[in-house]
Amino acid sequence: MSVGRSVGIDVGGTKCLGVVLTDDGTVVTEDRRPTPRGPGSLPALIETLAELAESLGPYDHLGVGVPGLVTRSGVLRAAPNLDGVAEFDVAGLLGERMGHPVQVDNDATGAALAEWRFGAGRGATDMVLVTLGTGIGGGLVAGGQLQRGNHGFTGEYGHMVVDPDGPPCPCGRRGCWERYASGSGLARLAREAAVGRRVSRVLEIAGGDPEAVRGEMVQQAAREGDADSIAVIDDFGRWVALGLVNLTNALDPEMFVLGGGLAAGADLYLDPIRTWFRELIYQPELRPMPRVAFAEWGEQAGAVGAALLHTVHG
Amino acid sequence: MSVGRSVGIDVGGTKCLGVVLTDDGTVVTEDRRPTPRGPGSLPALIETLAELAESLGPYDHLGVGVPGLVTRSGVLRAAPNLDGVAEFDVAGLLGERMGHPVQVDNDATGAALAEWRFGAGRGATDMVLVTLGTGIGGGLVAGGQLQRGNHGFTGEYGHMVVDPDGPPCPCGRRGCWERYASGSGLARLAREAAVGRRVSRVLEIAGGDPEAVRGEMVQQAAREGDADSIAVIDDFGRWVALGLVNLTNALDPEMFVLGGGLAAGADLYLDPIRTWFRELIYQPELRPMPRVAFAEWGEQAGAVGAALLHTVHG
Repeated sequence: MSVGRSVGIDVGGTKCLGVVLTDDGTVVTEDRRPTPRGPGSLPALIETLAELAESLGPYDHLGVGVPGLVTRSGVLRAAPNLDGVAEFDVAGLLGERMGHPVQVDNDATGAALAEWRFGAGRGATDMVLVTLGTGIGGGLVAGGQLQRGNHGFTGEYGHMVVDPDGPPCPCGRRGCWERYASGSGLARLAREAAVGRRVSRVLEIAGGDPEAVRGEMVQQAAREGDADSIAVIDDFGRWVALGLVNLTNALDPEMFVLGGGLAAGADLYLDPIRTWFRELIYQPELRPMPRVAFAEWGEQAGAVGAALLHTVHG
Repeated sequence: MSVGRSVGIDVGGTKCLGVVLTDDGTVVTEDRRPTPRGPGSLPALIETLAELAESLGPYDHLGVGVPGLVTRSGVLRAAPNLDGVAEFDVAGLLGERMGHPVQVDNDATGAALAEWRFGAGRGATDMVLVTLGTGIGGGLVAGGQLQRGNHGFTGEYGHMVVDPDGPPCPCGRRGCWERYASGSGLARLAREAAVGRRVSRVLEIAGGDPEAVRGEMVQQAAREGDADSIAVIDDFGRWVALGLVNLTNALDPEMFVLGGGLAAGADLYLDPIRTWFRELIYQPELRPMPRVAFAEWGEQAGAVGAALLHTVHG
């Protein structure tokens, strides 16, 4: 008897990453194509996805993860990182091209599914995935089910307002959590410290220009033992913990899985996050901190999750 | 064939309210007893609950809703409004006294269940109950299931921090949502306006003392057409909306049900809440506002929910 094979494709701003996943959670093949950009790129994107799927076939199921607001029927309503996307019916157009149904969902929802089934969240009944990248996204498992919400928009944790007088967010509001606790948030905290003449080592790495400071430079300086950078990392950990505390009050999860680009610096942040969580949670003696783990799938999380969408879409 | 009857009891700070609920969602009897207070009140509370249940019997199921953090096995870990409660095994002690299993859960979780099954949230798959009382509590239905979370602590929305530099909260932190969007939050907003020499009508109602201002006085003055009080209500509506937006980003609910004491002033707040929600949500054209309804069960919500706990506890 043959093992079932599913293809999952994760559409990123620069590349489309496809995997073949067997039913036991093993990635047996991986392939990638550049994401078409510019005018007319949407029909080209459908063709790219089709060719990638065909190159990875044969398969039993095909799923696609896309960045942005995806409806429950697989329409991408908007995507900041893809040119000119609006009401783009990925499931319908790709399904027509392939001649079979295709499951489409938000990339972070897919990543949550990947971590829950075959990653850091294996066996959890209540799990929150938070992706700390340029911004903050995520997904939610509650009561042993992957949650999609009414429109399919669950898990947009980054735009939780944590300070209405905070720094402006491109979304038009102020003080969204991702202004503090994402990669760009970490860079902003470091730039503020640089302007205030702290973090001289970070400034040195950035060539003397506070505007050139990136989150990775803070990580590098902190790893070198620079005290100012370690203080910035502590402040960053406080903001991450503040959002996790808010989500804990609402959802009482068994565990958080932290993914996204910043997961690579996990060893630097985990202690400050844990310390500040205990500081910020109400009655820590009655509400022990949920487990915090870093995502296991790394770059493949979205594609693996896309390959699993057929198991949860009704 | 007889219709099933369940007894539900809601334990409040001053009274225990019991109902008999039939399987079709009708309350056929109601009874109440004072909540025992002071030293030695916990054994007396068990006895009060037992007598109330016996007076309402015969029944097929017995459930109890209690204020505070309730574990999944029915232990009340802490309750600000009950004297000396710590690790109080309500389910175990009452079950022993009655000689049969008793379902015990948080009162707001029960209220969410009541509104979902037989109230304002009937038929919803994804529903958030927010109780706006002295503080803010709530419950969560996601994916067609009442969610309890890992410890049973889901829905403590009031301690979501929305401004880390905001006013101090009895919980030890600053800027918790309930400092703004609860009954005591409304009173605080009005007191601040009174100290700033606005809301002279509210001050008049309060006998000239800003410290005596209560949320109900603001409601009264707003109903009389007092412009300053209407402005305070608008500000209050903005804070309620801010929290609802945060919860929408995380959970994408189909609807909010607003309960608690402030539901009585619903007509005053609903328009400001709706207006501010549209202002504060990211991309309102892509994310229509969830329905907002006010709770239907009023004072009986907790008891009706308690009577329904046997339908969701595993």
